[in-house]
Amino acid sequence: MTTSATYEDVERAAARLIGHAHRTPVMRSRLINEMLGIDVVFKCENFQRVGAFKFRGAFNALSQFNAEQRKAGAVSFSSGNHAQAVALAGRLLDIPVTVVMPNDAPSSKMDATRSYGGNVIIYDRQTESREQIAADLAESSGRTLIPSYDHPHVLAGQGTAAKELIEAVEHLDALLVPVSGGGLLSGSALAAEALLPECKLYGVEPEAGNDGQQSLRSGSIVRIDPPTTIADGATAQYLGTHPFEIIKRIVTDIFTVTDAELVESMTMLVSRMNIVVEPTGCLGIAGLRKQRADFRGQRVGVIISGGNLNLSHFGSLLLDQHSASKR
Amino acid sequence: MTTSATYEDVERAAARLIGHAHRTPVMRSRLINEMLGIDVVFKCENFQRVGAFKFRGAFNALSQFNAEQRKAGAVSFSSGNHAQAVALAGRLLDIPVTVVMPNDAPSSKMDATRSYGGNVIIYDRQTESREQIAADLAESSGRTLIPSYDHPHVLAGQGTAAKELIEAVEHLDALLVPVSGGGLLSGSALAAEALLPECKLYGVEPEAGNDGQQSLRSGSIVRIDPPTTIADGATAQYLGTHPFEIIKRIVTDIFTVTDAELVESMTMLVSRMNIVVEPTGCLGIAGLRKQRADFRGQRVGVIISGGNLNLSHFGSLLLDQHSASKR
Repeated sequence: MTTSATYEDVERAAARLIGHAHRTPVMRSRLINEMLGIDVVFKCENFQRVGAFKFRGAFNALSQFNAEQRKAGAVSFSSGNHAQAVALAGRLLDIPVTVVMPNDAPSSKMDATRSYGGNVIIYDRQTESREQIAADLAESSGRTLIPSYDHPHVLAGQGTAAKELIEAVEHLDALLVPVSGGGLLSGSALAAEALLPECKLYGVEPEAGNDGQQSLRSGSIVRIDPPTTIADGATAQYLGTHPFEIIKRIVTDIFTVTDAELVESMTMLVSRMNIVVEPTGCLGIAGLRKQRADFRGQRVGVIISGGNLNLSHFGSLLLDQHSASKR
Repeated sequence: MTTSATYEDVERAAARLIGHAHRTPVMRSRLINEMLGIDVVFKCENFQRVGAFKFRGAFNALSQFNAEQRKAGAVSFSSGNHAQAVALAGRLLDIPVTVVMPNDAPSSKMDATRSYGGNVIIYDRQTESREQIAADLAESSGRTLIPSYDHPHVLAGQGTAAKELIEAVEHLDALLVPVSGGGLLSGSALAAEALLPECKLYGVEPEAGNDGQQSLRSGSIVRIDPPTTIADGATAQYLGTHPFEIIKRIVTDIFTVTDAELVESMTMLVSRMNIVVEPTGCLGIAGLRKQRADFRGQRVGVIISGGNLNLSHFGSLLLDQHSASKR
């Protein structure tokens, strides 16, 4: 691992992704704009391969393996979208991939990871350390560890989504991005700093896991206990050191939202735009709704980070939301 | 009303719609392609204004009003997407719009129609005839009646969706289109005939309302009792005479699907593509899944006609589908 990434790394990642990642749609809703008094531009990474932006960083990292690394393969630990992203990138690049997943990960995510050809190793979240398992696997077999956010190649890949958004709309006053470990936010910040120096960058994270906000405001990485939130893709306990170096230089602030606010935004996106977004993917728009007084009359980009969710869970949330709106 | 439309009318409609209708995204899913062994290209009219293709035909019709017609206004009858489409087109063109809706129409659709500035008149489906009410309104006040499908300007407008799809993908072996009164199918057929003469056209309708299939196979319009189906946008009891003239010349066949097949397709589109499609909007893909043996190895266009549905109903369907898949 080297020093952190620059915008040139985002540009090189974009070149590597051509023909492999989708250039996802940029969407607007006149109704949402009227409701908020803001010109909102959505970058829809819920339509990315594997259903989330994670494919960008994983493919960018694996495509830089040398011959020896390609032969030995990659190892990763994830209970979510990063697992599927590394597995698919490995399949496309003909690199064997091992993913370490907790035994309580949704079986649908394990199945999806296996369907992309990933070798899934299950560990007990209570008694074993996934970092230790993955590090042992890396050391004993020569596999290269690809972490889900704390890696310059991963965060540079994630930055290509914001680059595409900015190229599509030319001007933005602000950009709001979901935060977990900071890979997407830091990559987006590199793209915005280079292409739109006047654009303000904001992260949004779950209120229950506000380590990013605490870190940015205090100036050093704050670690928290595992947060309990519906945003299951934003449960990192601390920002990565590579992302944080960039975030503290470029990002203006990090907002937080409650689970109830995420569900309201998820319902709004389904009913007004006919798109399915997982709770974590709604962080940006939920943060914008909450802070809308600060952005009135502006053009604001929002990255929708992913759309993978359990359909029966989604069905329940829609029914609950419907009941709540009747009360 | 004049003779039926030609492809030149579709072209002129496309010019009128520039800057007013969305050029909706064309989407693909590698997973669905692998499942079916078909290269499927979706034209996503669930992302059209008012959430359905209906805006195209309504705007095309109203934008051709002369000064007298514009002053007197338009009248329409619809319990669904056409109501909202005419109301929005009227607002954009500064033409007053009256929509006759049944008293059992979903309150959400009445609210949406009113929110676009439409004047809603409610009638009793059991004791009154909406055609009579609308005709009386048209005659007494000089309002111009805009039917939901049996009108050359309406069907020419609907044809612009297929025109955009064909321009985006260049080649198609076949195109599958939902059928209710035939406006979308006949407009699509005009576009395909002119731009891709080798492309075969198919309609898909609910099994419970197979009047279109009967009509095409017998060569004259067959009328049926009001069908009971989850596809609430495909309950026309007979094809329009203008659409049928075109359909019988160009369309190869009309397939039917069951409600259960529609729900399966709706779930597939949510889980694999993260898009919300109303049951009627799933007719094309449900028909393709059912008849997939006929299309293997081909590139097939599917028009997703709309995405408007009641969220709590949608939630229930997802839960039911989840339970069914566990049995």
